[in-house]
Order: sequence, then C-alpha cells, then structure tokens
Amino acid sequence: MRTINNKIDLLKESPTRKIDAIREKLKRENKDIIVFSAGQPSIPPPIEIRELMGKLLKEESMNLYGYTPSQGILELREAISDDLKLLGGIDVNPSNIVITAGGQAAMFSTLATLLEPGDEVILFDPTYFGYKPLLDYNGAKIVRHYVTMEKDFQPNIDDIANIISKKTKAIILVSPDNPTGRIIDHKSAKGLAEIAIDNDIWIINDEAYKTLIYEGEHEFLYKYAPDNIISINTFSKDPSIPGWRLGYVYGPKNVIDKIKLVNEEMVYCPPSFAQHMVTRYLRSDIRLKYIKDVINEYRKRRDVMINAIKKRIPKAKYIIPKGSMFVFVDLKEYINDGEEFSANLLEKYQVASVPGNYFSEKYLSSLRLSFVAEKPERIEKGIEIISKALE
Amino acid sequence: MRTINNKIDLLKESPTRKIDAIREKLKRENKDIIVFSAGQPSIPPPIEIRELMGKLLKEESMNLYGYTPSQGILELREAISDDLKLLGGIDVNPSNIVITAGGQAAMFSTLATLLEPGDEVILFDPTYFGYKPLLDYNGAKIVRHYVTMEKDFQPNIDDIANIISKKTKAIILVSPDNPTGRIIDHKSAKGLAEIAIDNDIWIINDEAYKTLIYEGEHEFLYKYAPDNIISINTFSKDPSIPGWRLGYVYGPKNVIDKIKLVNEEMVYCPPSFAQHMVTRYLRSDIRLKYIKDVINEYRKRRDVMINAIKKRIPKAKYIIPKGSMFVFVDLKEYINDGEEFSANLLEKYQVASVPGNYFSEKYLSSLRLSFVAEKPERIEKGIEIISKALE
Repeated sequence: MRTINNKIDLLKESPTRKIDAIREKLKRENKDIIVFSAGQPSIPPPIEIRELMGKLLKEESMNLYGYTPSQGILELREAISDDLKLLGGIDVNPSNIVITAGGQAAMFSTLATLLEPGDEVILFDPTYFGYKPLLDYNGAKIVRHYVTMEKDFQPNIDDIANIISKKTKAIILVSPDNPTGRIIDHKSAKGLAEIAIDNDIWIINDEAYKTLIYEGEHEFLYKYAPDNIISINTFSKDPSIPGWRLGYVYGPKNVIDKIKLVNEEMVYCPPSFAQHMVTRYLRSDIRLKYIKDVINEYRKRRDVMINAIKKRIPKAKYIIPKGSMFVFVDLKEYINDGEEFSANLLEKYQVASVPGNYFSEKYLSSLRLSFVAEKPERIEKGIEIISKALE
Repeated sequence: MRTINNKIDLLKESPTRKIDAIREKLKRENKDIIVFSAGQPSIPPPIEIRELMGKLLKEESMNLYGYTPSQGILELREAISDDLKLLGGIDVNPSNIVITAGGQAAMFSTLATLLEPGDEVILFDPTYFGYKPLLDYNGAKIVRHYVTMEKDFQPNIDDIANIISKKTKAIILVSPDNPTGRIIDHKSAKGLAEIAIDNDIWIINDEAYKTLIYEGEHEFLYKYAPDNIISINTFSKDPSIPGWRLGYVYGPKNVIDKIKLVNEEMVYCPPSFAQHMVTRYLRSDIRLKYIKDVINEYRKRRDVMINAIKKRIPKAKYIIPKGSMFVFVDLKEYINDGEEFSANLLEKYQVASVPGNYFSEKYLSSLRLSFVAEKPERIEKGIEIISKALE
C-alpha cells in the first residue's frame, strides 16, 4: 500500500513560513513591506572573507567540493574550540564538537539522540517555536515553565525543581532568548546547572545568539555543569550565513559521537564550502572587529525601535533586549488577539511581524519585532504604522 | 536520567569512513595512496560557473546568504523541471520537486515519510550500503532480491513478484548502480513499473548517477508509473559538488509535501549557495558540454581499468559498467575474504578499495573499484599492484 507514516504530521512547518509567503505575494504586487518578522541578519559576512572564498573557487582542485568527515573538518573544530576559549573561557576539545548542517540539524539530531517516547522535557514559555514539533515527533511530553515579563523572563529555579519528575530528561534553554531578547542572569544560570546535576538531567542550551549581546554577558552554562550540557550553536547569525546551513553541537563525547552518527545519516557531512568559509572567518584578524561593528549597528537599530515604541505606543509593555534580534512587545492594553492583529498589519498596512502566540500560551496579545532587518528610518516608520493600526 | 535512545545504534557509520580514516593516517605518514575507494568525482565544477559565483560573492547583499523556502528556490526547481524534460523527456512540475541537503537527506527524509514499523522493503543484493541502516532505523524489514553477475545484475521480475507480500511498501532500485555499474534495461524497468502499479507499492528510484552514462540510456521509471515513483537525485556527481550537499526528490505532490516537511525540520532549508550555483549551472550553455567532457574522461579511465584487469587479473569476473563510477570485480578465483584482502591492500600496498561484502551477502570475494578518482597511468599501476597482492 502506498500509505505514508502519519507521525510526519507531528512535524509542523515553521509558522513564519506563512508570513514569508504572504510577504512574497505582496512583493510581487509591488508593495513595500517593512520587515520586522525576519529571524535573520541583514548585514552580509565580511567582504574580506567573501573575496577570499571567491579566489579559492578559481583553484582547479576538489578541495572545496569533496565530502568532509561527518563530524566536520578538524580545522573548523579546532577554530571553534579556540573561539569558545576566547569568548567564554571554556575548554572544549575538538573531539567534543560535531559540525551540523545548521542549528535546525543540531536540534533535530540532538533530540533524536536523547529522547525516548514518554520522556518529559521542560520548555520555557515563551520560547522559540522550533522545539515543540520536534519534541512531539520524538514522543516526548512537554512540561511548561512560564516565565514573565515582570520577572525579566528569568526562570524561577524553585518552580522548575517542582516540575521535575522521574521522567524528566531535559530542560531546553534559549539564551540570549528568541523571542524575548532576555539573557539568562548569572544566578539563574548557576541554579539551572545545579538542578541539572542534582537530578541527573540534560540541559539543552540553545546559544544561537551568543555573540549578539548588547549589554551584559553571555552565560556559558558549560562552565558550571560540563557533563550535563548539550550546547546548540549556529553560524546563521554570526557570520550571517543562515541559508548556508552550518552550526555545531558540543557536549560529552559519548553523546556527541551519537549525534554525529545521526547527522551522518541525515546529511552525510555538513556543507563543505560553508565549513571552509567559517574556518577562515574564525581564524581571521577581522572576526572580532566585524562582529563588534555588527553589534553596534544592531544596537543602534534596537534603540531606535525602543524609542519609537516608547513615543508612539506608550502603553506597550516590553523588556529592553540585551541580546538576540527581537523586541517582544505585549500590546494587551490595545488588542486581544495578536495573531489577528499581526495578519491585519501585514495585509492592510504592509508591516510584517510575528505574533506572540507562536511562542507562548500566555502572551496572546503580543508581537515579536525584529530590529535587525530594516534601517533606522524604516524602523521608525514601521512603529508609527503599528501605532496607527492599533487605534 | 541522562540516558540516550538506543535506537540510534541502528544507524551505522558508512563503512567507507573507516577506509577514509586509514587513508588519512597513511597520508600523514607520507605514503602515496592509489584511491579506488572514493565514491566521488575528481573533476571540479565548470570554471565558468565557479568564477561567476566568485563574482556574486562580492555583492553587498544578503541574496546568497539568506534562508530559502524549505522546498528550495523556485528558479532551481524550474531549472530541474526543464532538465528532466531535456534529459528524460518527462514532465515533472516544479511543485512536485523538493530540494534537499544532498542525496543522503533525500533518502533519510523519503524513508522517514514512507515507512511504518513492520513494512517490508525489497532491496537488491548487491546494492548501495546506505539503505540498510535507514531501513533498520525506521523499523522496516528488508527482503532481499539477489541479482547476479551472470544475468548482468538485472532483476528477475518473476522472482520479485514472488517476494512481494501484503506488507511490502517499496522496492528500492539504484540505477545506474552502485556498486555494479549496471543500468537497468528497458524490459526490467517496465516490468518493475508494472509490478509496482499492480501491487500498489512504491518504487524508490535512486538516480544519483543518471547523467554518468557511458553506453546505453538511463531509464526514467517515472515514464511508466508516475504515481508510484519517488525519485532520489543528487548534484554530488554532476556538477561535482558532493561536499556542498544538494539533491532533490520528485514524486506525487502529496508525498513531496510531506518529504518537504521532514526536510524543513531536519535542516530548515537546503544550502542556499549551492542552490544558486546549480541553478546557474543547469541554465548555462556549457552544462551539456561539461558533462559530456567529464563522461569522455571517465569512460577513458574505465576502459584503462578494464583493460588492465583483463591483462593483469585474467580470472577476475566483472561486467563492464555502463554507468556510475565503479567496476565490481569478483576475485573468487584468487581469494575468499574480500574484506580481509581489501584491508591488506590498503595497509601493505597502499591501494584503497571497498570490499564487496559492504554491498552484498553473496559477493564476499569481490571489490568495488572506482575508476574516476585516479588518472590513467595510476589506474594501471594500481591494478598491477592488486595483481601482485593476489599472488
């Protein structure tokens, strides 16, 4: 019988794909869209690295084109190891790192490796929408830990202790956070690490935005519980190659070896051109300057957005994001249904946003607004349009 | 508990990875290895396309770097649709095509979509070793159809009809074949298509080598049973970007939509740089000339290898491969254990090959020898070394 496996339906298309499709449609109608919805950077990788790759493309060799080891080329894993030492002061051996075809493959392979049907996984609310379908597909039960704007979206360690059961396999943390821009504070980071050790559970630490920090410091949880942390990373945000699909996972060697195996069976090896590019990027003397310039530009745009919201939408509630790319704005003083408002905003006013209910069961009147995709004057214009639409 | 899912152990590292690792070790010892083991091309993509991509890398835009639709960019799917029309005379709508992160992701996502535990899948013997672990992982039972060198490795349609049961979900066909180089003949192709229609089962048609044809013609089974064929394709062999991970699947829309969903969850989108490159390759006026030149070169190398075997290893049995990259040589007149011989050949004689037992339960005294990785004089030298090692 030509039937298919219905389990596939537990996987869900990213809800932002729908928004992308409407944006494309409106663009074809020559409408000018202000984009606050995109979860990707707007500044390309450093020109020096791009030019270098262009030169390498002229060489008559298979070096850039051949399969690589499934774990990724050693030179890249060594460069990442040095980078983690430089940025976080942590010692991660290259053999504890597996390169993946992006952060999504890192998540998919990690969850396929760790989870068994019936496992419980603690997920924050709000949190990145990408985890739920993968947890459902792997037969895990989601247990929510609700964090609130009033508490700066920091977790409550006692509450987490109370929802841990014998079936708990892992806690998933995203920091800097998507959608809230919260960076986990030092006390909470240590608290989570201790709870993981005490209960013999994993922390899956999604560090996709770890270099996009505007104030404060990124917490490398690996410092406090190296045997309990599986860290998910991507090069989509830094150096800005989301479409090239390159990321990595680090953690205990026995688990990394299995995650490597899943990745080999999923994609055989991580994309080689991207591996060669990022190796050169991480080893270049412009790496730190480039990311500093990018952060300065994004910080400027963030401040423009925050100031515009303050001025135009005075009853909006939000925290000032210390990292990532987003302001998570609660508009409950103006509207009830964020999803309906977001759809309206796009179709009638040509401003693209992502509604809060994609990330939360509680923040139903909110929007996630990216401040990195548009330039300052268009950010101001977009917020002005939102304020009019709210009236 | 920090346990992991033991099901992962059903996935197996590609056995050629071990050979690669020993090759690397010997290379570091400055030993000169003759490579007959590689399943990848040795001629890089056309210089015109590489130079064009180098130019595009200089543009200050996110065009090459951003996420693409999870199904792949429309321009590439349109170019593939036109290419299938040109090469095979078949009409495949771009909406029936999903771009994947290589042939491996195409296989993984297709099998995850189609298979339910307990399904039976008919696999040829010998066949590509990549399928078994994925079938095991998805809980399918493998039913073997043994093809033989005496019958040119063509299937016996009556025998296949006899092993089809109510639980049969699919037949997996690789043509042009890895490891044997056999192209399925017209009668067998039609026979397989009819059997699939009569029994309402899928044919998963792995067409990775469809443009590497030295004599005869590739059979597009889609012609005979469009509703029953899921076709697996890759750009690893043509235009020679195995490490870049780009492939595609075509088939009935309802299945393609699900395979797309699995791929989105696995990797979010196929690698964008490779998509832009292959779109330009397929649309360029040098595409047909390039692949013709590559085929002429590989055919020359194949003939050098065949003639050297004929001269040096006269009791070897083989068919002359009409497609793909390999000669599958049965050495039963000389040795018993192909795996032991292959290991010896590499360690003591520095000639890398792949033993037949990786592909077959029956051809245990055979080797798969790639004729594309080395130049003619080194092919002759390698065969000479093998003949000495056999003594």
